[in-house]
Amino acid sequence: MWHHGDVATASVALTSDDVAGCCSPLTGGVLDTSAAERLAIVFKALADPARVKLVSLIAASHGGEACICDLVEPLGLSQPTVSHHMKMLVDVGLVSRDQRGKWAYYRVNAEALDRIATAVSSQPR
Amino acid sequence: MWHHGDVATASVALTSDDVAGCCSPLTGGVLDTSAAERLAIVFKALADPARVKLVSLIAASHGGEACICDLVEPLGLSQPTVSHHMKMLVDVGLVSRDQRGKWAYYRVNAEALDRIATAVSSQPR
Repeated sequence: MWHHGDVATASVALTSDDVAGCCSPLTGGVLDTSAAERLAIVFKALADPARVKLVSLIAASHGGEACICDLVEPLGLSQPTVSHHMKMLVDVGLVSRDQRGKWAYYRVNAEALDRIATAVSSQPR
Repeated sequence: MWHHGDVATASVALTSDDVAGCCSPLTGGVLDTSAAERLAIVFKALADPARVKLVSLIAASHGGEACICDLVEPLGLSQPTVSHHMKMLVDVGLVSRDQRGKWAYYRVNAEALDRIATAVSSQPR
Protein backbone atom coordinates (compact mmCIF):
# COMPACT_ATOMS: atom_id res chain seq x y z
CA MET A 1 0.00 0.00 0.00
CA TRP A 2 1.36 3.43 -0.91
CA HIS A 3 1.25 5.60 2.17
CA HIS A 4 1.00 9.36 2.05
CA GLY A 5 2.75 9.94 5.34
CA ASP A 6 5.95 8.69 6.89
CA VAL A 7 7.44 5.80 4.98
CA ALA A 8 8.46 4.12 8.23
CA THR A 9 4.84 3.77 9.36
CA ALA A 10 3.71 1.83 6.29
CA SER A 11 3.65 -1.92 6.72
CA VAL A 12 1.87 -3.61 3.82
CA ALA A 13 3.53 -4.54 0.54
CA LEU A 14 2.19 -3.24 -2.75
CA THR A 15 -0.76 -5.02 -4.28
CA SER A 16 -1.28 -4.73 -8.01
CA ASP A 17 -4.05 -2.20 -7.30
CA ASP A 18 -1.62 -0.09 -5.31
CA VAL A 19 1.00 -0.27 -8.03
CA ALA A 20 -1.62 0.85 -10.51
CA GLY A 21 -2.51 3.76 -8.23
CA CYS A 22 1.02 4.98 -8.00
CA CYS A 23 3.38 6.77 -10.21
CA SER A 24 1.54 9.23 -12.39
CA PRO A 25 3.88 10.58 -15.09
CA LEU A 26 6.13 13.32 -13.73
CA THR A 27 6.02 15.21 -17.01
CA GLY A 28 2.63 14.19 -18.37
CA GLY A 29 0.62 17.05 -16.89
CA VAL A 30 0.38 18.87 -13.58
CA LEU A 31 0.27 16.35 -10.73
CA ASP A 32 -2.25 16.86 -7.96
CA THR A 33 -1.01 16.90 -4.38
CA SER A 34 -1.89 13.27 -3.71
CA ALA A 35 -0.07 11.99 -6.80
CA ALA A 36 2.95 14.16 -5.97
CA GLU A 37 3.00 12.79 -2.41
CA ARG A 38 2.87 9.17 -3.60
CA LEU A 39 5.78 9.70 -5.97
CA ALA A 40 7.81 11.58 -3.36
CA ILE A 41 7.41 8.71 -0.88
CA VAL A 42 8.87 6.27 -3.39
CA PHE A 43 11.78 8.60 -4.18
CA LYS A 44 12.37 9.08 -0.45
CA ALA A 45 12.74 5.33 -0.03
CA LEU A 46 15.54 5.48 -2.63
CA ALA A 47 17.08 8.72 -1.35
CA ASP A 48 19.79 7.00 0.66
CA PRO A 49 22.98 5.37 -0.67
CA ALA A 50 22.56 2.36 1.64
CA ARG A 51 19.07 1.63 0.30
CA VAL A 52 20.15 2.11 -3.30
CA LYS A 53 22.98 -0.35 -2.69
CA LEU A 54 20.62 -2.83 -0.99
CA VAL A 55 18.31 -2.86 -4.02
CA SER A 56 21.26 -3.50 -6.33
CA LEU A 57 22.63 -6.23 -4.03
CA ILE A 58 19.30 -8.06 -3.85
CA ALA A 59 18.71 -7.80 -7.60
CA ALA A 60 22.20 -9.17 -8.27
CA SER A 61 21.83 -12.06 -5.81
CA HIS A 62 21.55 -15.67 -6.92
CA GLY A 63 17.97 -16.29 -8.03
CA GLY A 64 17.13 -12.63 -7.42
CA GLU A 65 16.70 -13.31 -3.72
CA ALA A 66 18.86 -12.32 -0.76
CA CYS A 67 18.84 -13.24 2.90
CA ILE A 68 19.22 -10.39 5.38
CA CYS A 69 22.23 -12.38 6.58
CA ASP A 70 23.91 -11.79 3.20
CA LEU A 71 23.24 -8.04 3.15
CA VAL A 72 24.81 -6.90 6.40
CA GLU A 73 28.48 -7.48 5.56
CA PRO A 74 28.50 -5.81 2.09
CA LEU A 75 26.80 -2.74 3.54
CA GLY A 76 29.24 -2.39 6.43
CA LEU A 77 26.35 -1.43 8.71
CA SER A 78 24.82 -3.13 11.75
CA GLN A 79 22.03 -5.67 11.23
CA PRO A 80 19.44 -3.43 12.97
CA THR A 81 20.38 -0.57 10.64
CA VAL A 82 20.17 -2.78 7.57
CA SER A 83 16.80 -4.13 8.80
CA HIS A 84 15.55 -0.56 9.19
CA HIS A 85 16.56 0.30 5.62
CA MET A 86 14.95 -2.92 4.36
CA LYS A 87 11.72 -2.05 6.15
CA MET A 88 11.57 1.27 4.31
CA LEU A 89 12.04 -0.47 0.97
CA VAL A 90 9.41 -3.10 1.80
CA ASP A 91 6.93 -0.52 3.11
CA VAL A 92 6.77 1.31 -0.22
CA GLY A 93 6.62 -1.96 -2.17
CA LEU A 94 10.02 -1.75 -3.86
CA VAL A 95 11.07 -5.01 -2.24
CA SER A 96 9.08 -8.01 -0.99
CA ARG A 97 9.93 -9.88 2.20
CA ASP A 98 9.50 -13.56 3.00
CA GLN A 99 10.26 -14.82 6.51
CA ARG A 100 11.55 -18.40 6.40
CA GLY A 101 12.62 -19.77 9.75
CA LYS A 102 15.23 -17.57 11.34
CA TRP A 103 15.91 -15.34 8.35
CA ALA A 104 14.02 -12.88 6.18
CA TYR A 105 14.52 -13.18 2.41
CA TYR A 106 14.05 -10.27 0.02
CA ARG A 107 13.24 -9.84 -3.66
CA VAL A 108 13.12 -6.68 -5.73
CA ASN A 109 9.65 -5.84 -7.09
CA ALA A 110 10.47 -5.40 -10.77
CA GLU A 111 6.96 -4.20 -11.57
CA ALA A 112 7.25 -1.39 -9.02
CA LEU A 113 10.63 -0.31 -10.44
CA ASP A 114 9.20 -0.25 -13.94
CA ARG A 115 6.23 1.86 -12.80
CA ILE A 116 8.66 4.39 -11.35
CA ALA A 117 10.82 4.32 -14.48
CA THR A 118 7.75 5.01 -16.63
CA ALA A 119 6.66 7.84 -14.33
CA VAL A 120 10.08 9.51 -14.51
CA SER A 121 10.63 9.06 -18.23
CA SER A 122 10.19 12.19 -20.34
CA GLN A 123 8.61 10.03 -23.05
CA PRO A 124 5.46 8.59 -21.47
CA ARG A 125 4.58 5.15 -22.84
CA MET B 1 27.51 18.40 -12.02
CA TRP B 2 26.45 15.45 -9.87
CA HIS B 3 27.62 16.07 -6.34
CA HIS B 4 28.29 13.31 -3.85
CA GLY B 5 27.49 15.42 -0.81
CA ASP B 6 24.67 17.68 0.19
CA VAL B 7 22.41 18.55 -2.70
CA ALA B 8 22.07 22.10 -1.43
CA THR B 9 25.78 22.78 -1.83
CA ALA B 10 25.91 21.88 -5.52
CA SER B 11 25.70 24.79 -7.90
CA VAL B 12 26.54 23.76 -11.46
CA ALA B 13 24.05 22.32 -13.93
CA LEU B 14 24.64 18.94 -15.53
CA THR B 15 26.96 18.72 -18.49
CA SER B 16 26.58 15.81 -20.87
CA ASP B 17 29.70 14.25 -19.30
CA ASP B 18 28.10 14.44 -15.90
CA VAL B 19 24.87 12.91 -17.16
CA ALA B 20 26.89 10.07 -18.65
CA GLY B 21 28.61 9.60 -15.30
CA CYS B 22 25.38 9.29 -13.40
CA CYS B 23 22.75 6.73 -13.03
CA SER B 24 24.23 3.27 -13.18
CA PRO B 25 21.45 0.68 -13.47
CA LEU B 26 19.90 -0.06 -10.09
CA THR B 27 19.39 -3.71 -10.96
CA GLY B 28 22.23 -4.30 -13.42
CA GLY B 29 24.83 -5.47 -10.89
CA VAL B 30 26.06 -4.43 -7.47
CA LEU B 31 26.59 -0.67 -7.37
CA ASP B 32 29.73 0.67 -5.78
CA THR B 33 29.43 3.30 -3.07
CA SER B 34 30.07 6.21 -5.39
CA ALA B 35 27.42 5.11 -7.91
CA ALA B 36 24.93 4.49 -5.09
CA GLU B 37 25.62 7.98 -3.70
CA ARG B 38 25.09 9.64 -7.07
CA LEU B 39 21.76 7.92 -7.56
CA ALA B 40 20.62 8.64 -3.99
CA ILE B 41 21.32 12.37 -4.48
CA VAL B 42 19.04 12.47 -7.49
CA PHE B 43 16.29 10.58 -5.67
CA LYS B 44 16.67 12.94 -2.70
CA ALA B 45 16.02 15.89 -4.97
CA LEU B 46 12.70 14.25 -5.93
CA ALA B 47 11.86 13.03 -2.41
CA ASP B 48 9.57 15.94 -1.63
CA PRO B 49 6.01 16.47 -2.90
CA ALA B 50 6.66 20.17 -3.59
CA ARG B 51 9.63 19.37 -5.83
CA VAL B 52 7.75 16.61 -7.62
CA LYS B 53 4.93 19.06 -8.26
CA LEU B 54 7.35 21.76 -9.44
CA VAL B 55 8.85 19.41 -12.05
CA SER B 56 5.37 18.53 -13.32
CA LEU B 57 4.32 22.20 -13.38
CA ILE B 58 7.39 23.27 -15.36
CA ALA B 59 7.09 20.39 -17.83
CA ALA B 60 3.42 21.23 -18.39
CA SER B 61 4.08 24.96 -18.88
CA HIS B 62 3.69 26.68 -22.24
CA GLY B 63 6.82 25.96 -24.28
CA GLY B 64 8.15 23.74 -21.48
CA GLU B 65 9.40 26.79 -19.61
CA ALA B 66 8.15 28.40 -16.42
CA CYS B 67 8.97 31.62 -14.63
CA ILE B 68 9.48 31.41 -10.88
CA CYS B 69 6.68 33.98 -10.77
CA ASP B 70 4.29 31.35 -12.20
CA LEU B 71 5.29 28.62 -9.75
CA VAL B 72 4.67 30.26 -6.39
CA GLU B 73 0.89 30.44 -6.48
CA PRO B 74 0.18 26.83 -7.60
CA LEU B 75 2.51 25.53 -4.87
CA GLY B 76 0.89 27.57 -2.12
CA LEU B 77 4.32 28.22 -0.62
CA SER B 78 6.35 31.40 -0.17
CA GLN B 79 8.66 32.52 -2.97
CA PRO B 80 11.83 31.91 -0.87
CA THR B 81 10.64 28.34 -0.17
CA VAL B 82 9.88 27.72 -3.84
CA SER B 83 13.27 29.17 -4.78
CA HIS B 84 14.95 26.82 -2.31
CA HIS B 85 13.20 23.81 -3.84
CA MET B 86 14.12 25.01 -7.33
CA LYS B 87 17.76 25.33 -6.31
CA MET B 88 17.80 21.68 -5.22
CA LEU B 89 16.35 20.61 -8.58
CA VAL B 90 18.81 22.77 -10.52
CA ASP B 91 21.79 21.62 -8.44
CA VAL B 92 21.34 17.96 -9.40
CA GLY B 93 20.67 18.87 -13.02
CA LEU B 94 16.99 17.89 -13.18
CA VAL B 95 16.05 21.43 -14.15
CA SER B 96 17.95 24.21 -15.92
CA ARG B 97 17.72 27.85 -14.90
CA ASP B 98 17.95 30.97 -17.06
CA GLN B 99 17.96 34.39 -15.44
CA ARG B 100 16.32 36.98 -17.72
CA GLY B 101 15.99 40.39 -16.16
CA LYS B 102 14.06 40.25 -12.94
CA TRP B 103 12.90 36.64 -13.20
CA ALA B 104 14.44 33.18 -13.37
CA TYR B 105 13.01 30.80 -15.98
CA TYR B 106 13.17 27.05 -15.63
CA ARG B 107 13.09 24.05 -17.96
CA VAL B 108 13.05 20.34 -17.15
CA ASN B 109 16.14 18.44 -18.30
CA ALA B 110 14.50 15.61 -20.25
CA GLU B 111 17.81 13.85 -20.78
CA ALA B 112 18.44 13.69 -17.03
CA LEU B 113 14.95 12.30 -16.40
CA ASP B 114 15.47 9.64 -19.04
CA ARG B 115 18.83 8.65 -17.51
CA ILE B 116 17.11 8.14 -14.17
CA ALA B 117 14.26 6.20 -15.78
CA THR B 118 16.76 3.91 -17.47
CA ALA B 119 18.66 3.42 -14.21
CA VAL B 120 15.51 2.48 -12.31
CA SER B 121 14.01 0.23 -14.98
CA SER B 122 14.27 -3.51 -14.30
CA GLN B 123 14.89 -4.03 -18.03
CA PRO B 124 18.16 -2.21 -18.74
CA ARG B 125 18.26 -0.84 -22.28
